[in-house]
Formats: sequence, structure tokens, C-alpha cells
Amino acid sequence: MINSYQKITIVGAGNVAWHLAPALEKAGCSVVQVYGRQSEKARALASQLKQTQVKTDLDFSDSSAHLFILAVSDDAIAEVARQIKLSEESAVVHTSGGQPMDTLTAAPTQQIGVFYPLQTFSKQRAVHFKTIPICVEANNKELLDELTKLAQKISNQVQAINSQQRAVLHVAAVFANNFTNHLLRMAEQLLHDRQLDSTLLHPLIQETISKSLEISPAQSQTGPAWRNDQKTITHHLDYLQAYDPSYAEVYRALTGHIQSLFTDKFGTD
Amino acid sequence: MINSYQKITIVGAGNVAWHLAPALEKAGCSVVQVYGRQSEKARALASQLKQTQVKTDLDFSDSSAHLFILAVSDDAIAEVARQIKLSEESAVVHTSGGQPMDTLTAAPTQQIGVFYPLQTFSKQRAVHFKTIPICVEANNKELLDELTKLAQKISNQVQAINSQQRAVLHVAAVFANNFTNHLLRMAEQLLHDRQLDSTLLHPLIQETISKSLEISPAQSQTGPAWRNDQKTITHHLDYLQAYDPSYAEVYRALTGHIQSLFTDKFGTD
Repeated sequence: MINSYQKITIVGAGNVAWHLAPALEKAGCSVVQVYGRQSEKARALASQLKQTQVKTDLDFSDSSAHLFILAVSDDAIAEVARQIKLSEESAVVHTSGGQPMDTLTAAPTQQIGVFYPLQTFSKQRAVHFKTIPICVEANNKELLDELTKLAQKISNQVQAINSQQRAVLHVAAVFANNFTNHLLRMAEQLLHDRQLDSTLLHPLIQETISKSLEISPAQSQTGPAWRNDQKTITHHLDYLQAYDPSYAEVYRALTGHIQSLFTDKFGTD
Repeated sequence: MINSYQKITIVGAGNVAWHLAPALEKAGCSVVQVYGRQSEKARALASQLKQTQVKTDLDFSDSSAHLFILAVSDDAIAEVARQIKLSEESAVVHTSGGQPMDTLTAAPTQQIGVFYPLQTFSKQRAVHFKTIPICVEANNKELLDELTKLAQKISNQVQAINSQQRAVLHVAAVFANNFTNHLLRMAEQLLHDRQLDSTLLHPLIQETISKSLEISPAQSQTGPAWRNDQKTITHHLDYLQAYDPSYAEVYRALTGHIQSLFTDKFGTD
């Protein structure tokens, strides 16, 4: 029996679509259509695939696909769900970490869900889907099973995650991705402005992350805040205050938060 | 001619000494003595080496070593420099990123310097010295040359860095290491408290760092703060405020700092 979910339409031609569509095809699915508001982007993506129709409108009434994956920006999900035309036996899922499943309720089908690959995607960087966690959710058991099976074709890490949990994952991802990246930017800027080569910090950064992931961040914490080295902290703050007061502010916020864990560390009451 | 700097005494038996002493020996140096306040730690380190005397006092008047590497905690450097006894032809260096060279002025020698391996060390983790930047400094050209040659025996990344520059490196390392690790801890805690598996974020974290180091953090920045997605930011802050107001504070500080770069991004004036 041919699994009907293996015929898929990808709505969107951005970073997620760019990586997801070929991964699905490699896993034996047929990506029958790709939609892009900008036809060049959709064409570029379709040209990476076997037999994929390029669509620039949202009328999929005649589509042979049974699963529609909305890989569009968070803001566009509800609007696309409202506008899309498709057979009511179809299922529609989005790929967002930041949006609940209900964002799709306006879609003209009873079957909605989420297919969220927890990774940061850029067109110019290859990704290995096998290692990317895929979080699935659906409003019925049958669709959840289908999405799980589909996800398992491309990834070794598939989990059923509901919208509330996914929202927490999304907040945590902001800390783990956006904020850490920004701290690396601040560190780089500090070196840059003193004509220091920013690659000097690269081995430290790599070891920091490896250690944190292997041992756990709680057991890897070091530094002046953690050992309550007030002399060094004052020294650093003096430098940063003169360099850029906003850097001192970030330093103070994070140092303060690290020190707030002292109650746990030293058991002060 | 035998290079006299190849006879080395390591003062300290902590994490830096633990990795540095064997690396120097492997590079052909002779670690003639290891000092540790706690004799067991010094003995444990010496047992990893070929022919190394264990010392628990700071009288090195009869030592054959010409270079003394003080791999002790920042707080202890000045005190050890004051107490140490050695031939005045010897050179003394410390291994700290956070302390200026002058911390050693009390040492009974005219030759002082710094030999700072820019990495985070833990006894249980192997390190590859070849990739670790070593920042050297000395109060005379001859010692600087010797330290440079010595560092080049164990590392491919050796740079002369003065005390002012090293202080900036040290501040930047707090951002790149201590603060990023703490953010990973916060992310993990968020997941933990919702019974979510923290390894879900590992592929994202790995890709975040790889991308940031390969492309540059400035070009890798994404997220609600960067795209000024006020709806998502409010959503996240509401969640964090209820979860733990101190998390909301850190979120606000970093989001605010990312947004302060908008002037650059959008060129608002």
C-alpha cells in the first residue's frame, strides 16, 4: 500500500523549505509542488528536486498531495492557512517552534499539526537531518502517527511535543542560540577594537561548548562571577564602563544571575 | 648548545599545571620540579612525568631550572612571587589571563613574563595544545624570544600580547566562556522544569557555534530581538516572568542589547 502522506507539497521556499524538501525526497517521499510568493525562489528550490511543480498561488484544489507543509515565517502561517485551497482530506502542518498548532485552525481541513525541525537553517550551510530533533504534534492520533513515521525517515530524534512544550523549547532556543551568538559577537567586538585577532578565542569557545554539552553546563561553570571574585568583576566593569556602558550592563546582568545561584552553591540558608 | 629554558619548574598542581607540564615534557623540555601546597596533588602530577621532584616548599635556591612557571590561582601569584627563593638568573612567568605581568615584580629576579594558554582546563578532559593560543609577554627581549620559542614547541598559535591586551582578552573570554555557558544552563533549566529532554537543544547549540565561528556572529544573528518581533518577545517575557522573574531580566537585558544594534542594522540616522 502506498502511504498517501508520501506525496507532499511544500508551501514556502525559504531556509527551512530549502533543506527539508530535498531531505524528504531523499527519504523516498515525492515533493509534488513547491509554493513561493517569489517565483524565482520557488523555481530555484524546485530545480534541486526531481519532479516538482512550481506554484505561485495557493489554490491546491487539484493537488495530488495529501500533506501540506507550511514552511513560511511565523507571521505568515495564519494568513496562508486562511487563503490556501485544498481537498478537505488533506492535512496541513507548519514548521514553526514559536507558533501553537492552533495557528492553523483557519485552514480548510480538519487535520492540522506541526512538523518542527529544531535547528537554525541557512541556505549556504549543509545540515545533517539525521541528527536534527523533529518535534511533531497533531490534532488526531492518525496524523500524529503519520507525522512521526515521516519524521523518522529523515531523523533519528523524533518526539511528540505539544504546543505548550514547544513554546518552552522556543524560549530556551532563544537563550541557547540567539543570546549565545550575541555574546560571541560582543566578545569579538571587544577584541576587534583592540586590534586583537578574534580567532584567538575560537579554541576556548569550542571547548566551552563541548564541555558544556558533554559534562553539563552546571558542572562546567567557571569564572569571576562563579567564584565570587569581586576584585576581577570590578576590574572588568571599570573597563567595560569606559568602553561602552551597555557592555557593562550586560556583564552586570549575567554576573548577577550567576551569583544568584550561590544560594544553591553554598547553601546559605 | 642546550637551551637553558628547557629546564623548567612548575609551581602549582592545578588544572593548568596538569595539562601544561606533560605537554612541555612531550615537546622535549625537562620538568625538573613540581610544587604543590597539597603534596598529594603535586605527587599525582609528578607521577605523570619522567623525572620530576615533588616540592612542597618554595625554596628553589638549588634548582637546576631556569624557568619557573607559576600556574597558580590569580590570588596566589603575588604571594608566591614574594615567597619564592631562586637564583637571580632564573626567569619567572605566570599563566594567568586576568593578571598583569607586574603581579610578579616582588619575585627575586629581574626577568619576569607571562605564558598564558588561552583555554579552559579541567583535569578530566584531554586538550590538544597544538590548537591552543599561547599569549606570551616578558620584560626583556631575550626572555620574550625564549618564551615564544618554548610556546611554539607546544602550540601552533603563539602571540606576543601585552598586559593591557591580555586584560581585554580576559574580559572577552568571560563573555565567550562563562556567560555563554551560563545561558546554556538557563536553557537547560527551562527544559528540565517542563520534563523536556535537554539534549533536544544540542544540535542547535552545535550548529549555532559552528556557524558563528565560520561565518561570524554578526552575520549569524537571528531571533525575535534581531527581527524586532515584539509579539514573540512579549510572549516570551510573559512566560519567563511567571517562570522566574530573574530569567525575564536576563532576557530583557540581552534583547535590549541586540536591539541597540538596530541603528547599525537599519541605519536609522
